[in-house]
Amino acid sequence: MASPGNQTADILRAALDGPWRDVREQARPRLDDERLFGDPYLDYHAARDRVLEQMRLVSKFGLAERGFRREHGGTADPGGAVTGLEMLAYTDLSLWVKSGVQWGLFGGAVENLGTERHRDVVTRLMSLDLLGCFAMTESGHGSDVAQLETTATYDPATEEFVVHSPTESSRKDYIGGAAEHARMAAVFAQLITDGEGRGVHCFLVPLRDAEGNDLPGVTTSDCGLKGGLPGVDNGRIRFDHVRIPRENLLNRYADVAPDGAYSSDIENPSRRFFTTLGTLVRGRISVGGAAAAAARVALSIAVRYAEQRRQFDDPDTGEEVVLLDYRSHQRRLLPHVARAFALSFAQNDLVRRMHLVQTGQDLDPGAQRALEKRAAGFKVAQTRHATRAIQECREACGGAGYLTENRLVTLKADTDVFTTFEGDNVVLIQLVAKELLTAYADEVRDLDALGWVRFAATMARDVAREGSGVRQLIQRLRDRGGDSVDDGDLSRRAVQLQLFADREDYLVRTAAHRLQARAEETGPFEAFDNAQDHILLAGEAHIERLVLEAFIEGIADIEDEQARALADSVCDLYVYSSLEQNQAWYIMHRFMSVDRAKQVRRGVNELVDRLRPHALTLVEALGVPESTLRAAMLDDASVHQGR
Amino acid sequence: MASPGNQTADILRAALDGPWRDVREQARPRLDDERLFGDPYLDYHAARDRVLEQMRLVSKFGLAERGFRREHGGTADPGGAVTGLEMLAYTDLSLWVKSGVQWGLFGGAVENLGTERHRDVVTRLMSLDLLGCFAMTESGHGSDVAQLETTATYDPATEEFVVHSPTESSRKDYIGGAAEHARMAAVFAQLITDGEGRGVHCFLVPLRDAEGNDLPGVTTSDCGLKGGLPGVDNGRIRFDHVRIPRENLLNRYADVAPDGAYSSDIENPSRRFFTTLGTLVRGRISVGGAAAAAARVALSIAVRYAEQRRQFDDPDTGEEVVLLDYRSHQRRLLPHVARAFALSFAQNDLVRRMHLVQTGQDLDPGAQRALEKRAAGFKVAQTRHATRAIQECREACGGAGYLTENRLVTLKADTDVFTTFEGDNVVLIQLVAKELLTAYADEVRDLDALGWVRFAATMARDVAREGSGVRQLIQRLRDRGGDSVDDGDLSRRAVQLQLFADREDYLVRTAAHRLQARAEETGPFEAFDNAQDHILLAGEAHIERLVLEAFIEGIADIEDEQARALADSVCDLYVYSSLEQNQAWYIMHRFMSVDRAKQVRRGVNELVDRLRPHALTLVEALGVPESTLRAAMLDDASVHQGR
Repeated sequence: MASPGNQTADILRAALDGPWRDVREQARPRLDDERLFGDPYLDYHAARDRVLEQMRLVSKFGLAERGFRREHGGTADPGGAVTGLEMLAYTDLSLWVKSGVQWGLFGGAVENLGTERHRDVVTRLMSLDLLGCFAMTESGHGSDVAQLETTATYDPATEEFVVHSPTESSRKDYIGGAAEHARMAAVFAQLITDGEGRGVHCFLVPLRDAEGNDLPGVTTSDCGLKGGLPGVDNGRIRFDHVRIPRENLLNRYADVAPDGAYSSDIENPSRRFFTTLGTLVRGRISVGGAAAAAARVALSIAVRYAEQRRQFDDPDTGEEVVLLDYRSHQRRLLPHVARAFALSFAQNDLVRRMHLVQTGQDLDPGAQRALEKRAAGFKVAQTRHATRAIQECREACGGAGYLTENRLVTLKADTDVFTTFEGDNVVLIQLVAKELLTAYADEVRDLDALGWVRFAATMARDVAREGSGVRQLIQRLRDRGGDSVDDGDLSRRAVQLQLFADREDYLVRTAAHRLQARAEETGPFEAFDNAQDHILLAGEAHIERLVLEAFIEGIADIEDEQARALADSVCDLYVYSSLEQNQAWYIMHRFMSVDRAKQVRRGVNELVDRLRPHALTLVEALGVPESTLRAAMLDDASVHQGR
Repeated sequence: MASPGNQTADILRAALDGPWRDVREQARPRLDDERLFGDPYLDYHAARDRVLEQMRLVSKFGLAERGFRREHGGTADPGGAVTGLEMLAYTDLSLWVKSGVQWGLFGGAVENLGTERHRDVVTRLMSLDLLGCFAMTESGHGSDVAQLETTATYDPATEEFVVHSPTESSRKDYIGGAAEHARMAAVFAQLITDGEGRGVHCFLVPLRDAEGNDLPGVTTSDCGLKGGLPGVDNGRIRFDHVRIPRENLLNRYADVAPDGAYSSDIENPSRRFFTTLGTLVRGRISVGGAAAAAARVALSIAVRYAEQRRQFDDPDTGEEVVLLDYRSHQRRLLPHVARAFALSFAQNDLVRRMHLVQTGQDLDPGAQRALEKRAAGFKVAQTRHATRAIQECREACGGAGYLTENRLVTLKADTDVFTTFEGDNVVLIQLVAKELLTAYADEVRDLDALGWVRFAATMARDVAREGSGVRQLIQRLRDRGGDSVDDGDLSRRAVQLQLFADREDYLVRTAAHRLQARAEETGPFEAFDNAQDHILLAGEAHIERLVLEAFIEGIADIEDEQARALADSVCDLYVYSSLEQNQAWYIMHRFMSVDRAKQVRRGVNELVDRLRPHALTLVEALGVPESTLRAAMLDDASVHQGR
């Protein structure tokens, strides 16, 4: 393959930029602004103030408005909002988080759970006239939202809700904005009216007066320093019988009448709860996107450094060798670059689906639920990728990588919590896996014993994929190529996809059977716990398959032949390194012969060799402008060159 | 297995404490002192001052003196010095690093490379009257010490050396102490006399006057913030023709006469260079020890938190479930606990070997070289373990894990650079692997073609193990049990060790052959680079096998039956989770059947089930006093309990 040069990078970047590439292109030059970058030498109070100033700059970009409906003064482009705000992850993740809290979480709660009567709040929060926070998590409960302990008890005498923290563990915790800046909170609490608990609902609770003092009954405190994100003022809130007007219930899905009568269009309380949470999917999608963006920054820095840093002589030439010419260094970095490509396409696809659902263009009744599953899965994949890739980048840059001036440690520290927030990753994979198991169980529930056997033998592998179109995709890829899948060439896309899909199917099917068999013996919890490692694998396999599909679809849209060929090699590296990670499983479950597994290992080596000359093109394609990298070691090449 | 309770913890802790358990026991109550802990709210200048105050407290512990010879006023107990200082990693890693720089690196250089004429420097540095730094690494070269560019040119006219930084990349970089506190540096530079380069030697160069100002020709600067270790003042040094007296050459292994004549007892320049570096092995051993100590703190915190934190209902009981009762949580933490056990035994063994060599009790001519190889390998194993285990602990504690008040993020940030310093891990594994390949090549060099074939078939697997005693150990373990190894029960120690050893032998042997075959085609560098992933695996397999041996020997010394049984299960978990990580390799190379690999996976699950009730005992055995954990979430249980 000839070195395709910068034009190829431009074409690939356009492909990776996805449906909102105009939003990305508009944002790029704006990011070249010192004021938008964090200053690691500020103490954390000053860092928080700086982020607030940054938000005021960002509020002029017209990004926040995209997230709100036209009747609220927005521009009704949720995909553009998520994509545009994600770009802030290139400069300062504290800024991204604070923006996400204000416009995404707090704003999203009011926009999506509120009604006409909360319009003024939306207008004010959009312009930063009103700073808010999103008070869901408590010290006692994070991922398990249904168990929140804060109460909001309706008092018909005064037509108010009384918001209260009844226990130590019910204090709101880790709430971004609660320590200093927020004047109001969207508080998730157990609604009680007529002496009856109605489950978790969301309420607007004023926190501070104009001078920033806690209002009566509200006690905020500061979580203090964290692993990173110094510009985010995470805090705790306790409520001591705080009274708010009845109208402060965000009443899109349920309301309380002046006399205390509870009403909702959604009769089933569980469905109501999940509908409420479902509107918040944008937060989860945004976290995944920002994590992947941070990883792109780190990879751009580490690959560029590896192209200039020399260490150890080549005894054949007497010259010191550029780091990226070492096989081990290629293997450290390039598979992460390949995964960064894969996840960019996956995120674009996810944002597009969200946009269609949230703008009412996708009316399929299952679309919202499918979106939530996908968002959960991709959030896990992207935040894990960020944790691993940034760590590898840091180590691959040696001592220089440890200096704050080279940014990698800040990227690591800031993104570290992404594996936890908007849903702990272990909990989220289980959510994905449970959805798969439920879909599977729905199909098989009514079969008798003989039916089960037949089913397992003939149809099972297709059930989990229902609706995903993977069969059609494999068929299409098959038609395009020649040979059959089963003994096919591992470099063929259909064969690769089949391997990913086979793994997923097998894991889902066997997890279901294992659960069923154990549940009869031990009860459902122990059965579930006993199979937990199996279930988690099933969820992971599903996510990997969806990511690969997105990659394949993304490549198909590239028209330029040279660029597409390069992207194809990157996709191969993603596939081979994923297969290599799971090769024990493939061999043990007879989906791969030992010879084929060895071929996979050799394949990774061949692919990093093949991609090595294009490494700079690939990181340029990742789309982080060079002016936003700002790693001192890159600007100071002569110091780091060696002889 | 009945729950053995605290007595068992005490017995296990004594075993893990190793030969210097008295030093550890003396240190423990002293660590319960607020002043020895870092204050994350200080700015970095104040943090550095605090560490200096901490060092003055530590200087009264009598630990530093252990590292020096009696004729210098020390107590000549290098094993006790390394072990005792390691305990500081429980409170503040910045303190540990600064202490290590002062007494270990700077002190060690003067002690081991200097002679009688440098005695006064040793006395002063021991008492902190003289603060020093260790100026080896340059911006251009870190791990490749032979390529350092700083020059020290002898001027016979004045009987001085002229120390100079000739290029941008020759500035000394990342030097702990150089930014603020150090008054003197041990500078590694290319010695030039009579117009001839004599290779890298070490010189004492005064840096600052009594007021802390740079001396003429010396320009220090500050590396500023890093990923962690805020209390360590890393800096840069440039020399502009700085003149130092001839006597400032540390002249144990080479000297320059007043007339400029160079002399050395070690004729071979390469041997001289490696002898010089070899004296510094203590630093590498200490880094590994401190990394493992930090991981023990993190594991102690995370396991205790997992014992109290409840999330999600058990549908069978309606009670919320303690985190550590989840299979996935056990699988996240307990294998790291098992590895922490393994590495404690390995470190004890390593320190003991170092002590014997450095106190002249082990006079085997190969002992120093073997020690260096082992030190390099264990440094890699321990720093990797720290990176992974602490990250897992952070994530396993959710949002609470991200707060600085719970210490995990600080442990992560502080230890992150340990993978790099005292030798980059990738470079160090290669060093280990090259030693193995050299030993192998020495054995096979003189064989003809037929000899090679015979050799490969019959003897090869024993060569790499020569001197390690592994064969004898396997035989001993075999004799103790009954059945043969090859089809033996996987729970038998001899079978386990055989699997580890087989992997190592196979990898070393095949790497050697691959190198030989390629080298004839492509030249040695390309051959090496092409096989680099293979070579790295060989080094890793060797390290894993040595760690297992140390674990086995460590258990053998435990007399109490109940405690030994528990330690045996922990060792099994170490073995099974290591085998699980490498199961693809074992299957692909026919050392393990698919059935056996499945047995391994089940085995991990069974072992975490079996060890679950003893989790607290195990972390108590790790020996981090509860009073030094100081994670707010542990002291504040009711807040984090849930309902």
